[in-house]
Amino acid sequence: MSVTTPGGFVAAGTHCGIKDTGATDLALVATSDAQPVTAAAVFTSNLATAAPVQVSRQHLDVSGGRAAAVVLNSGNANAATGESGRDDAERMCALVAAELGCQAHEVLVCSTGLIGIPLPMAVIEGGIPSLVGARAPDAGADAAEAIRTTDTVRKEVVVEADGFTVGGMAKGAAMLAPNMATMLAVLTTDAAAEPDVLRAALRIAVDASFNALSVDGCTSTNDTVIVLANGRAGAADPARLGDALAEACTSLASQMAEDAEGATKVARVRVTGATSAEEAKRAARKVAESQLVKCSLFGADPYWGRIVSELGTAGVAFDPDRVEITYGDVVVCAKGIAVAYDADAVRVHLEGRRIELHADLGLGNGEGTILTNDLTPAYIDENMRTS
Amino acid sequence: MSVTTPGGFVAAGTHCGIKDTGATDLALVATSDAQPVTAAAVFTSNLATAAPVQVSRQHLDVSGGRAAAVVLNSGNANAATGESGRDDAERMCALVAAELGCQAHEVLVCSTGLIGIPLPMAVIEGGIPSLVGARAPDAGADAAEAIRTTDTVRKEVVVEADGFTVGGMAKGAAMLAPNMATMLAVLTTDAAAEPDVLRAALRIAVDASFNALSVDGCTSTNDTVIVLANGRAGAADPARLGDALAEACTSLASQMAEDAEGATKVARVRVTGATSAEEAKRAARKVAESQLVKCSLFGADPYWGRIVSELGTAGVAFDPDRVEITYGDVVVCAKGIAVAYDADAVRVHLEGRRIELHADLGLGNGEGTILTNDLTPAYIDENMRTS
Repeated sequence: MSVTTPGGFVAAGTHCGIKDTGATDLALVATSDAQPVTAAAVFTSNLATAAPVQVSRQHLDVSGGRAAAVVLNSGNANAATGESGRDDAERMCALVAAELGCQAHEVLVCSTGLIGIPLPMAVIEGGIPSLVGARAPDAGADAAEAIRTTDTVRKEVVVEADGFTVGGMAKGAAMLAPNMATMLAVLTTDAAAEPDVLRAALRIAVDASFNALSVDGCTSTNDTVIVLANGRAGAADPARLGDALAEACTSLASQMAEDAEGATKVARVRVTGATSAEEAKRAARKVAESQLVKCSLFGADPYWGRIVSELGTAGVAFDPDRVEITYGDVVVCAKGIAVAYDADAVRVHLEGRRIELHADLGLGNGEGTILTNDLTPAYIDENMRTS
Repeated sequence: MSVTTPGGFVAAGTHCGIKDTGATDLALVATSDAQPVTAAAVFTSNLATAAPVQVSRQHLDVSGGRAAAVVLNSGNANAATGESGRDDAERMCALVAAELGCQAHEVLVCSTGLIGIPLPMAVIEGGIPSLVGARAPDAGADAAEAIRTTDTVRKEVVVEADGFTVGGMAKGAAMLAPNMATMLAVLTTDAAAEPDVLRAALRIAVDASFNALSVDGCTSTNDTVIVLANGRAGAADPARLGDALAEACTSLASQMAEDAEGATKVARVRVTGATSAEEAKRAARKVAESQLVKCSLFGADPYWGRIVSELGTAGVAFDPDRVEITYGDVVVCAKGIAVAYDADAVRVHLEGRRIELHADLGLGNGEGTILTNDLTPAYIDENMRTS
């Protein structure tokens, strides 16, 4: 199961030398015949946009939503690298295009790793011919492996839909937040779709999955989700294509949450009873990103007062006398005050790996969910030094 | 130097039994003659407003900005306690008023501690007579001591202005963020001021001090800053009074940053070159509250890429090709890209206890500063369990 499971796609992953550990650091996903197919992408909302994001966005504009390949590197984000960073990203595309025999603007590019350091172009230039030469239908796992940074496992998905298939790979374990994260994902499908339809379906899928995940509230400079649709399986019903993309993205997002840096728990924060779905999601995000709530999750501490306090500062309609808080299926606070509850049941739930936090605001019908993690000393340890 | 340094004020701090450690947990600041004087307050922006905040706000409304005393307890926030919580807060005021011989609505009340637990009113009722009986002009330190929760030190201040004096005490070591924090402060002055003037001066002082401090981005349910002005020293120039209050608040806020839970460093994040002062402060806050930036501070790691990335998601005008980042007085990033710099000088600065981070956006004249701390395993340890 991989990004090459839908027919007509090849992939590769190699070590060119960006990482000094010897781990693979260069990846490719391409159409088997190097011909461009329909492509769409969603990029980071961060205004400090990395060079590869700028270049990929421009290539999709020039090609009118078509691409033949995606080249990705890990170990260096090519962000905050100015004009020469953009030249480097362009050059990565041109080198891959030359090897594949397509146009440079038919190649998209993604980078992930440290910010502010120029790409080591000599090793990348040296590595691209063997990367492209290694492309094969059964090398999807190699590509998924080569985009890992602090990820402890590869992240891959296949969704078999009615008449077509979606494959995908992703990386991401921190800096995960609103509107994407240091996360890259490449999806493929053999369904046929016009660029507009594909773009709309991807945007919805991303909002329902990656944008409902917040590991640490930090949004990266490099976030990119790309989908290539080669049409081999014929036209797909747009709604079904959307559903399949959403299912694939949700699986990849969930794999990221499971692999979040230093985390011991995955928590689903669900808010209901808000005055709108947007307010519900905003409130869920405020709780999910609270340092104090995340400390309580780590400690398996049923201190619901912090949840009420965060809801009160979420910038949404809120009545402290109506809120109800539930851990798992045990109500601990109703009408804004403590209720007697089964402390053992709550303790057992909080000591598990998967926590369900539910806050009902009692005001309307808006619902929203954010997936998050606990804050742990291991997260600090992993992020306190980059060198 | 204490909240009773200005003439005409008394204070007390006693143990009534809210805390089972035996530490003092009940405090009083009052006018010497129990007569009401001009009073003003700033309260939390959290919509999950604690009962004492609701009661104090109402008392100031009823009295037209006058108060004779403030009663404070630590060890229990009396928040998320519903109608009976409001009754308890009212009763604290009524009991103090009866002992002092003033009106209940001339007493203000503050609580700090855990959320969601009813106040132990029996011990508080038992403690109030001896609290009020212990009031004395030289007991300011006792009051400052009795409002501590996780604070490791008392926080007090005296500002001698031209012709009048401001005294103050505060508590707060976590949940410190935008628009106040689990922080309480009581200020006194012998200057004379009308309620409107006092309120306006306090609002400005709070914005420049407590609201420019963010330990963990969490805003509490109980934040309160109260000032009592008894007029013994005669009328003060409003601007001078404002300056003196701001100086007192800034000192107390700085004492909080120095005592922040688990922190090893105090960082001043200064943003200049924004399109407005408001955007500068918002950008500084985004950087100051970033989990990843705070991890880097703990690790003394000069990874400025995270700062650029946070600025790009701060919701302010930003051009990645213009930003300049400085640690101490060493520029590490100019025009958005890395520059060669004295790594030893940066290392020495980052390994110190006080860090200066400066980001110039290169767009306008807006400036803003936020004080923050590093994120440490000790912070997690202190906050992972409440019982």
